[in-house]
Amino acid sequence: MSTPVAPALYGPVQDDIHLVEETLNAIQKVEFPALARMLAHILGAGGKRIRPAIALLAGKIATYDLEKLVPLAASIELLHSATLVHDDVIDAAATRRGRATANALFNNGPTVMVGDFMFAHAAELIARTGSIEVIRLFARTLMEMATGELHQDMSAYEYSSSTIKYFNRIAGKTASLFATAAKGGGMLSGLREDWLEALRSYGENVGMAFQIVDDILDFTGDEAEMGKPVGSDLMQGTLTLPSLLIIERYPDNNPVKRYFEGRQKAESLRRSIEMVRNSSILEESYKVARDFRDRALAALEVLPASEARDALADVAEWVMQRRS
Amino acid sequence: MSTPVAPALYGPVQDDIHLVEETLNAIQKVEFPALARMLAHILGAGGKRIRPAIALLAGKIATYDLEKLVPLAASIELLHSATLVHDDVIDAAATRRGRATANALFNNGPTVMVGDFMFAHAAELIARTGSIEVIRLFARTLMEMATGELHQDMSAYEYSSSTIKYFNRIAGKTASLFATAAKGGGMLSGLREDWLEALRSYGENVGMAFQIVDDILDFTGDEAEMGKPVGSDLMQGTLTLPSLLIIERYPDNNPVKRYFEGRQKAESLRRSIEMVRNSSILEESYKVARDFRDRALAALEVLPASEARDALADVAEWVMQRRS
Repeated sequence: MSTPVAPALYGPVQDDIHLVEETLNAIQKVEFPALARMLAHILGAGGKRIRPAIALLAGKIATYDLEKLVPLAASIELLHSATLVHDDVIDAAATRRGRATANALFNNGPTVMVGDFMFAHAAELIARTGSIEVIRLFARTLMEMATGELHQDMSAYEYSSSTIKYFNRIAGKTASLFATAAKGGGMLSGLREDWLEALRSYGENVGMAFQIVDDILDFTGDEAEMGKPVGSDLMQGTLTLPSLLIIERYPDNNPVKRYFEGRQKAESLRRSIEMVRNSSILEESYKVARDFRDRALAALEVLPASEARDALADVAEWVMQRRS
Repeated sequence: MSTPVAPALYGPVQDDIHLVEETLNAIQKVEFPALARMLAHILGAGGKRIRPAIALLAGKIATYDLEKLVPLAASIELLHSATLVHDDVIDAAATRRGRATANALFNNGPTVMVGDFMFAHAAELIARTGSIEVIRLFARTLMEMATGELHQDMSAYEYSSSTIKYFNRIAGKTASLFATAAKGGGMLSGLREDWLEALRSYGENVGMAFQIVDDILDFTGDEAEMGKPVGSDLMQGTLTLPSLLIIERYPDNNPVKRYFEGRQKAESLRRSIEMVRNSSILEESYKVARDFRDRALAALEVLPASEARDALADVAEWVMQRRS
């Protein structure tokens, strides 16, 4: 298993991310070969470990206790991976990050169970922090994430969905875990209440920006870089910010509506992608993401100046600039 | 929502089971109507709440702290229900306890997510015990349960499976949660280490007996009382003790083998059920279950005599006698 190199922007915690990676590798050492194989496939896909980095950075604001922060960071990444595993089952997704999904390789039954195993292991890791408050935060976050995902699933192909519903959905599905990474790290660092609230707000807003950029890249990204087909959200019946803006701007007879109604599907999908790429929709979507980034940066102002705080700001910038 | 009446055998905790029921009812009060409906359907199915009863009884051996025991008991029941929800998705089961399963009513996607929500809520409840040790026990138990279920799923239609594998499987899938109910209750009651080990052993052995009786009833039970078709384990490709004993006794050309090979399926299934019902297989299977019950009763001997201990013994007896 290769250890991905942490981006330079992780600054003062860059050299500690490998400890999170080691913890994630250790999880794969189970006696049951079929389970070990599935875990290796899922966790070996890598990723930028942005949530763990945020947790460590938030934990470096004051006391930096890696004994507790590494289990927190690994737990958050594992929880994130577990939800992706279940999402891919639900969406019957074939690829993720350019690799076959677990459900495509191992069938749905075992994949649901591996997801459950990963949730359980995440709970075990979070318990190692020794903090009941962090454990409760973690549990509530998983509740929010499942609710957000359920909202998305139940409103699939619902053409009348609104941007407010979209924001609520991604707040639960994505931003809640970013908020928990930031606040949880701060809690283990022993920060006072207003700083914790600043970190929570930072995490939530970075998470919102992250998801919006994700949803933009679903239309504009490079298929090879993204590791999934362009337009896959629409293919799964999910309206995201760019497609909601198309609907708002062009209420009558627009390609998203035609696609959802099953009319000229290939052509409507192609046209929807084209509209996002070549119209003001793209700029508007980025503007919304930037607003969230700005709120994240503003939240950081409350915290004392430090290398860790600067790195958190860098992460917020990177979220806007990423290409995959 | 009707509150099921706890069996009289729950003795000294019989009047407290309703507190667990109230906690389970409170979980259904969520703002998202679709989620509330699904939770009401799943949790409203009732059940005998045997795991919560064991947790409360074990917690009554010494200090009886309901503030902690009720969240533990509710968490264990919720965890149990969540695993059933995911199992039914995996098995594409249509009915459970005589009602339509969640996956049959609400589709697979939302059902997987509701299961995740229930896991999360179970984690939140267990955190309310305030005991890091109980939380870790809970997390490890969920890991064992997922692994046991995965073993079952991956060995479906595997005719060469052995009784040893079967025991390992049900130890993970079922007995581990009974063990955690008993030991967890004891931990919150502040018991010393050898008593905790006695409770763990009691729970594990009761759980083994419970699952074996479950697997016998799958062949011999009344369809209406069971709320699922007779022979449903075989239909899902799962070999349990009775069918494994048929294979051992009649290695050549037996109906289970014919069924798994897809030959004369209806007739082979009918014949398999008949063989379990009308041969020594039934008696042999019960003998194995009784041995586990006896080990459970022996484990209790270590504990000081009390009404709670007597009730735990009654539960072990009831497990053998139940008809559904």
